[in-house]
Amino acid sequence: MVISLLTDFGLSDNFVGVTKAVILNINSEVELIDISHGIRPHGIKQAAFLLKHSFKFFPRGTIHVVVVDPTVGSTRKNILVETDNYYFIAPDNGVLSLALREDKIRKIIQISNDEYFLKPTSDTFQGRDIFAPIAAYLSEGISITRFGKTIKGISTVKLPKVTIKKNCLIGEVVYFDNFGNLITNIDKKLFQDFTRKDKFMIRIKNRIIKRIAHSYSEAKLGIPLAIFDSFDMLEISINQDNASKFLQSKIGTKVSIEK
Amino acid sequence: MVISLLTDFGLSDNFVGVTKAVILNINSEVELIDISHGIRPHGIKQAAFLLKHSFKFFPRGTIHVVVVDPTVGSTRKNILVETDNYYFIAPDNGVLSLALREDKIRKIIQISNDEYFLKPTSDTFQGRDIFAPIAAYLSEGISITRFGKTIKGISTVKLPKVTIKKNCLIGEVVYFDNFGNLITNIDKKLFQDFTRKDKFMIRIKNRIIKRIAHSYSEAKLGIPLAIFDSFDMLEISINQDNASKFLQSKIGTKVSIEK
Amino acid sequence: MVISLLTDFGLSDNFVGVTKAVILNINSEVELIDISHGIRPHGIKQAAFLLKHSFKFFPRGTIHVVVVDPTVGSTRKNILVETDNYYFIAPDNGVLSLALREDKIRKIIQISNDEYFLKPTSDTFQGRDIFAPIAAYLSEGISITRFGKTIKGISTVKLPKVTIKKNCLIGEVVYFDNFGNLITNIDKKLFQDFTRKDKFMIRIKNRIIKRIAHSYSEAKLGIPLAIFDSFDMLEISINQDNASKFLQSKIGTKVSIEK
Repeated sequence: MVISLLTDFGLSDNFVGVTKAVILNINSEVELIDISHGIRPHGIKQAAFLLKHSFKFFPRGTIHVVVVDPTVGSTRKNILVETDNYYFIAPDNGVLSLALREDKIRKIIQISNDEYFLKPTSDTFQGRDIFAPIAAYLSEGISITRFGKTIKGISTVKLPKVTIKKNCLIGEVVYFDNFGNLITNIDKKLFQDFTRKDKFMIRIKNRIIKRIAHSYSEAKLGIPLAIFDSFDMLEISINQDNASKFLQSKIGTKVSIEK
Repeated sequence: MVISLLTDFGLSDNFVGVTKAVILNINSEVELIDISHGIRPHGIKQAAFLLKHSFKFFPRGTIHVVVVDPTVGSTRKNILVETDNYYFIAPDNGVLSLALREDKIRKIIQISNDEYFLKPTSDTFQGRDIFAPIAAYLSEGISITRFGKTIKGISTVKLPKVTIKKNCLIGEVVYFDNFGNLITNIDKKLFQDFTRKDKFMIRIKNRIIKRIAHSYSEAKLGIPLAIFDSFDMLEISINQDNASKFLQSKIGTKVSIEK
Repeated sequence: MVISLLTDFGLSDNFVGVTKAVILNINSEVELIDISHGIRPHGIKQAAFLLKHSFKFFPRGTIHVVVVDPTVGSTRKNILVETDNYYFIAPDNGVLSLALREDKIRKIIQISNDEYFLKPTSDTFQGRDIFAPIAAYLSEGISITRFGKTIKGISTVKLPKVTIKKNCLIGEVVYFDNFGNLITNIDKKLFQDFTRKDKFMIRIKNRIIKRIAHSYSEAKLGIPLAIFDSFDMLEISINQDNASKFLQSKIGTKVSIEK
């Protein structure tokens, strides 16, 4: 049984280590896989984006634990969601909402049964005290209805929308990766439906790109290129360089496509 | 069998990877859990603090390997400590001393039997060449007395003490985490014994806090709050912001409580 | 069965996590060990150096997956190499070449059989879509000849060479680690063959060192020292300080030895 972890804990403190320790102390047979602990502190949208683009690669039945939790200890709920293929455990702040559009929800539980919590339960670290033990007991086969009562809906995050006006589609950068590649909110299907077989110009920061590459190496060094990336999104990159720095762009930078 | 690792190796080099490789090469059945590798280079006190607040969450019998070792290869000893519930392996520089106050010591071994070392043994990397193989052989059930002779005491670190003068308790920041939360050396019991049910003022950098929160969300954005955190220590935080940056505070900043 | 991972993915994105997920989805029995994901983006030489100094510590039969791949999707090959003791999977850009000098090559396969690729295969992330599944299927015992046809040679990286003129040996810094230690391209045997039992002076940035230390602690604080390190290379360090910062040195800084 695999438990994945996606948090904004960082790797300098002991937060990830003790979360894993609590899980192993309950079920020593699980396989723990880190999706990332490098989410910006309180970066709910960033985590929602990465979860959406990660969860399906895991074995069926994986328990995805997502702890990006700026309102820990407030009245926001803790939830456990069973879908057709996976389980998700997280604070109900929207962090699961993008992933859950892509896998049919079977049941949502509001976690409340403190019989399964670590005691004493702290005011500040429910990742360790609630999410970790719930994931561990779930991995042992405890029925999800033991953890709390069924509820109807979950909170959602709002992502910037793509707008289309006449012959112009306007999106924006929603993520940049370790290499400085700029990932937009324009997906492949949307792009193709808009451009069909017409000529197009992709504009970012007054630079213009006229074609889609199929390899970073197709572009000369220092010249921006556009490519559909492993997120299946339109990405602006520079061959062997950092597009984010080179174009002085980051999250929110507009990317337009003109026909 | 779990082996935990806590070091100042960082994650850019191959140091953590080869340490784990050496362990698995001897015992492929162990479960390796990272507490952290983000200790500041040579940060013995920081590691001692994190170990103290981590070791008890692990399954009984876990072997905790701590390698923060500025004096590697000098005359300082390498030690293996058996307590009522765990094993600890580290250089004898105080890094174990805070944890060992909280779990009864049964036996201290000075590691010396090079039959269990990796050969050739380097001058600079005993984590790989000594601590890793000793941990692996220990996990296989080799008796701890095989690794060296029994000794009496261990080195300790000195942490700043809390002082109480009349109606004023003075502590200080001893750690700050990934979120910029400022963790003090004032624990919950000490705080409660001092304030009893009286009114109090917590002062840090000329900001005043008059109550203990039970959730970061209780405070308005941008206003410092005090909370007992997952370390069970008094922590100064800012709701959804970085208190360390906001208050320009770090390790050593005074925190006083006045009645 | 152990699979090691060495990449320039960093730990902030989900790249490492999904690579592992793909592997576990095919073979849930493997043990995944990170050598490092902190290689500078596109740092082929840095990865080649770390692989050379890591692979032998792993259990025999380990599959080493190295993904530092600036020309992903171009005409460069993907290769699987079987040596006397290990397997290596990587783009053919020289990243394996230093390690493969030290373990006899039995067979080189150009990976081409897309029956074993993840579908749909992206243009930008062969670590997830090709290297990960090939490693997983290999770990399950699939014969390496199933993955593609045998080829003859591999690409190599060129490292700076040591030059010797009269009584002067000139090398340079090729790596610096988390502690700021400066690792040169002068190995122990070369040094000893050159200096024999003569007196010598090691010169870096106009600082002079006249002896080889056997522990960082032998040097006074603030004084540069020379030591043979865990890479078995001549290393310039400062006891409990960061030599890279202190000496304002990094990769390419000359280090000379005069007799």
